[in-house]
Amino acid sequence: MLLSQIHEPNDLKQYSIEQLEPIAAEIRQFLIEKLSMTGGHLASNLGVVELTIALHYCYNSPKDKFIFDVGHQAYVHKILTGRKDRFDTLRKHNGLCGFVKRCESEHDVWEAGHSSTSLSAAMGMALARDLKGEDNKVVAIIGDGALTGGMALEALNHIGHEQKDLMVVLNDNEMSIAPNVGAMHNYLTKIRSDRNYLRAKDEVEQLLKKIPAIGGKLAKTAERLKDSLKYMMVPGVLFEELGLTYLGPVDGHDLAGLVDAFNQANNVSGPVLVHVLTTKGKGYTPAEKDSHKWHGITPYKIESGQLLKAVGNPMYTEVFGQTLIELAEKDQRIVAVTPAMPGGSGLVKFAERFPDRMIDVGIAEQHAATMCAALAMEGMKPVYAVYSTFMQRAYDQIVHDICRHNANVMFAIDRAGFVGADGETHQGVYDIAFMRHIPNIVLMMPKDENELRHMMKTALEYNDGPIAYRYPRVNVPGVPLDKELVPIPIGSWEKVREGDQVAIISAGPMVQVAEEAAEVLKKDGVNVAVVNARFLKPLDDSMLLSLANAGTQLIVLEEASQAGSLGSAVLEFYAEQGLSGVDVSLMGIPDRFIEHGSIKEQLEEVGLTAEAVVKEIQQHRAEHQFTFGKKVKPS
Amino acid sequence: MLLSQIHEPNDLKQYSIEQLEPIAAEIRQFLIEKLSMTGGHLASNLGVVELTIALHYCYNSPKDKFIFDVGHQAYVHKILTGRKDRFDTLRKHNGLCGFVKRCESEHDVWEAGHSSTSLSAAMGMALARDLKGEDNKVVAIIGDGALTGGMALEALNHIGHEQKDLMVVLNDNEMSIAPNVGAMHNYLTKIRSDRNYLRAKDEVEQLLKKIPAIGGKLAKTAERLKDSLKYMMVPGVLFEELGLTYLGPVDGHDLAGLVDAFNQANNVSGPVLVHVLTTKGKGYTPAEKDSHKWHGITPYKIESGQLLKAVGNPMYTEVFGQTLIELAEKDQRIVAVTPAMPGGSGLVKFAERFPDRMIDVGIAEQHAATMCAALAMEGMKPVYAVYSTFMQRAYDQIVHDICRHNANVMFAIDRAGFVGADGETHQGVYDIAFMRHIPNIVLMMPKDENELRHMMKTALEYNDGPIAYRYPRVNVPGVPLDKELVPIPIGSWEKVREGDQVAIISAGPMVQVAEEAAEVLKKDGVNVAVVNARFLKPLDDSMLLSLANAGTQLIVLEEASQAGSLGSAVLEFYAEQGLSGVDVSLMGIPDRFIEHGSIKEQLEEVGLTAEAVVKEIQQHRAEHQFTFGKKVKPS
Repeated sequence: MLLSQIHEPNDLKQYSIEQLEPIAAEIRQFLIEKLSMTGGHLASNLGVVELTIALHYCYNSPKDKFIFDVGHQAYVHKILTGRKDRFDTLRKHNGLCGFVKRCESEHDVWEAGHSSTSLSAAMGMALARDLKGEDNKVVAIIGDGALTGGMALEALNHIGHEQKDLMVVLNDNEMSIAPNVGAMHNYLTKIRSDRNYLRAKDEVEQLLKKIPAIGGKLAKTAERLKDSLKYMMVPGVLFEELGLTYLGPVDGHDLAGLVDAFNQANNVSGPVLVHVLTTKGKGYTPAEKDSHKWHGITPYKIESGQLLKAVGNPMYTEVFGQTLIELAEKDQRIVAVTPAMPGGSGLVKFAERFPDRMIDVGIAEQHAATMCAALAMEGMKPVYAVYSTFMQRAYDQIVHDICRHNANVMFAIDRAGFVGADGETHQGVYDIAFMRHIPNIVLMMPKDENELRHMMKTALEYNDGPIAYRYPRVNVPGVPLDKELVPIPIGSWEKVREGDQVAIISAGPMVQVAEEAAEVLKKDGVNVAVVNARFLKPLDDSMLLSLANAGTQLIVLEEASQAGSLGSAVLEFYAEQGLSGVDVSLMGIPDRFIEHGSIKEQLEEVGLTAEAVVKEIQQHRAEHQFTFGKKVKPS
Repeated sequence: MLLSQIHEPNDLKQYSIEQLEPIAAEIRQFLIEKLSMTGGHLASNLGVVELTIALHYCYNSPKDKFIFDVGHQAYVHKILTGRKDRFDTLRKHNGLCGFVKRCESEHDVWEAGHSSTSLSAAMGMALARDLKGEDNKVVAIIGDGALTGGMALEALNHIGHEQKDLMVVLNDNEMSIAPNVGAMHNYLTKIRSDRNYLRAKDEVEQLLKKIPAIGGKLAKTAERLKDSLKYMMVPGVLFEELGLTYLGPVDGHDLAGLVDAFNQANNVSGPVLVHVLTTKGKGYTPAEKDSHKWHGITPYKIESGQLLKAVGNPMYTEVFGQTLIELAEKDQRIVAVTPAMPGGSGLVKFAERFPDRMIDVGIAEQHAATMCAALAMEGMKPVYAVYSTFMQRAYDQIVHDICRHNANVMFAIDRAGFVGADGETHQGVYDIAFMRHIPNIVLMMPKDENELRHMMKTALEYNDGPIAYRYPRVNVPGVPLDKELVPIPIGSWEKVREGDQVAIISAGPMVQVAEEAAEVLKKDGVNVAVVNARFLKPLDDSMLLSLANAGTQLIVLEEASQAGSLGSAVLEFYAEQGLSGVDVSLMGIPDRFIEHGSIKEQLEEVGLTAEAVVKEIQQHRAEHQFTFGKKVKPS
């Protein structure tokens, strides 16, 4: 096995290009075997085996900087930089991260989980290099999907202008996580499909010689035309117009061709874009055949390609998708908008049923949000389906275009709360904190799938501005579904359990955690009320006042940043009411980034479990007899 | 006077194109006169007089939708849509808004103050139109500067793909607020400067006929070449490659040419881009000569072009710019980064002094932020100078790229707090709320210019992650400046006034307001302490604990969203400490958007004045003897 002799990138350099082929085959086999047990991003990594080998073969990492956009396609890079033996722990708690991770290796220079950051990072590193008078290479590896993100285009505009030496490897696999949309994609497809381009380069030269000299008043135009012909006939004119030298397209599975292209690129001064064509899932038939399905996968049987999915209730995502179809059957105003996540957002069936009312804008969270504002202002009922973590990209558009216009946009915020194996770049724990202070918005979170369905109806019938429902990346509890969907009064909470000594205010899956804690405490003789704070904004003022008057200890339990979220809102309310004396405890996510692992492990890490709630209440009651300004008597 | 007969756009249509010329002249005169008294965005509006007239002449607003990007260039539109008589109140409290405003007119269909939103809005309106089966036109008017914003490029990518009928008017005035940067700008300049393009169109047709038929193995290539020649020789290939039909360039001050172009555009199906060349400040010599200076101006003398600036202390912006030069003289790691605001951010002199260390990325807040992360990770000390309101665009990049990487980026957040005449789209009142919950960041605000300078030193010497100083759009108080700049201990507050009955916690200019209130109350025998909470994160735990133990009423007074800002942080701290009993009152900005006016009027509107603080304290002491869970005795 050659791969067992590769401990760091330099080890590759002892081989000829031909000898690299079996290494590529071994890496592919390694990935297929390891990921069959751990799951992970298989298809994209199978697509970049040769590309990653060629990069490490031609450059000197870590002196030369490789910046992987998104970074879920860095498994091969991890294998080549001494982390092969840790793949059994991939994406597990305290295990190998599924993305690039600086603390893992000096070869990891840039972390990302969100797309389209690599060109900005490359620009920063190239600027720093030149200011410091150093001479390393900077290489950004970006997919065709990520290239359509606004910040990547902002960076491209700047890169073309500044003319710093840096290389962009455009890893064009004809799709991002979803089928690619957008004019940029159409443009790349044209280059790919028109193989004449590849031949044309040489032929144009010959052709030019055959055009006779033209005199008279057209002479100048003819000259201009000749000058520009060579340039115009090669692909990539769009990139060339933006100031980058375009090289390609190059077959991304041909090691010799890749090495040749990178060597060419190194001779170009200024920014250069190498257009590499790769096949997602390359070398593993099931993944090649359905690379969307095989983008991020659970463990699977290698021979059959059968995914080993845990049997269980559907995810909230699926309930959302199904319910949206039901609502859209009856209401033609509903339009679904997704930034490149039709699958992840549960909208595949919706798209089949209502192709005209499903708008996938590509990776473009900002544009999606502002477009929704305009759709709403023209009388439509847009549903912006987006993961909590990616909605961060649209913060300004939510403030400036949606909430300031008070437009009737509905937000379906998926993966709110911890997300598990994707880890710290993907946690959906800030959306309450970054939306709660924006005027005009209504924020909801359901405790179960039945409530989610009612909330979707609530949002549809609400015509006073933007309204959001957020739901977690977990299976639904499996409660019975009401046949008729009825709007929930805006701002109304629900007491799901009575109790007069302590009250826990929570939302979403934390309501269940609160109930479990209450059940335990009941055995100790402590009566705990549980409040389903299904509206995170506006709050239920009258319930909060009645809780204050009851004189119980209040705990706000939330799977969200403790700073700025529901607990904070409750405290503000009491302060505004002149009721600072109410005894409120906060149980939320502390002020640090929480890494990958299972959602259960993440909740345990930050103490958002029934056990932790029980302990908190017992401790508060036993020890905390004195709080400033008032006495609390233990019962 | 013809203008007096124009009450709505249809009134224009009785005139021939020639007769529109004097109307344009009258509008220009009107703007020059009115703005000499009110101030406002003169140069950009003088640039679009003919363009706006031609649009209203060729289309039927409000059925056809005009979407002005940013919207500060909509004065002519306002004049033509019945709001001429309100120009004396421009940008004043309860007066005519300086931007497009839906409540002012049915002809205002899209509001904006931030740039680059118009293409997304146009796409949404075109989609809604087609889904509803209607037939109106949708026209986005966007400047060349705004076109480089990431969300505009995201929208362009989507527009080119979907092929909906809509028109983009690219108002190319060769500059945004600052000289334009970026590859897109270089590209447009190439089109502008190469007037051959204009002639080439026809000539290429003739030329093609002169090329002899070519046979043999080159035949196909020759055919391809011929087919693409016409297309390649005309300008705008970049837009054409993205799926838009390109028309232009058109002289933006030639009414007949504009009308002709718009009529041509109406015959194109799918998206069309009309490239219009305009001159900022057209028709008023001082503004034509220095259109940057005349972008947004105070009142002025018409004949001399002399701006009537109030005499007073410098703005915080200037102190920042000057101090940054001082620091950069001694520290080569400092790099200033601005998203198209070198002037507004006080960095013009810095750019002259350190051209290599001044990076203007164009309107690209996201790219700027992530590039700063990379600069910091490579050992530089980037200062991201940005207005609070525009930093909203970079929220995700601050979370994902700067704070998660714990990169040593310094933020100079200008125009924090109310901004006055620019109004609700520009208020800098959310940055504490949207940054406070992000792990790793330090947030500061100085009470005066001397403290700002020390904070800049503090930030420079801090090497544990991102750190921000925010300052308002006001003149500095004019305190003496310390010669030596000394870092302030992170998280340390300062008691600027002793008192044992009430304590006001505040930051920035509100410290002065608190002191004024304290002075008034002193006469009533109430001793009020004033705390300068110069760190908004982290808080000064020990001072907060000592304030709690003092048993005084605490007021958190802040010119920021009451939800989620400093008051909220103080409440969270006490709750975490089990000190819910502390009597905290919040005085911040309520949960709604605050419109244009002077900063003084805005502060009065929301009760952030010394009078309001005095009243709050008196009322609290007199009436509020009972708060839940504890008794407060009036002194």
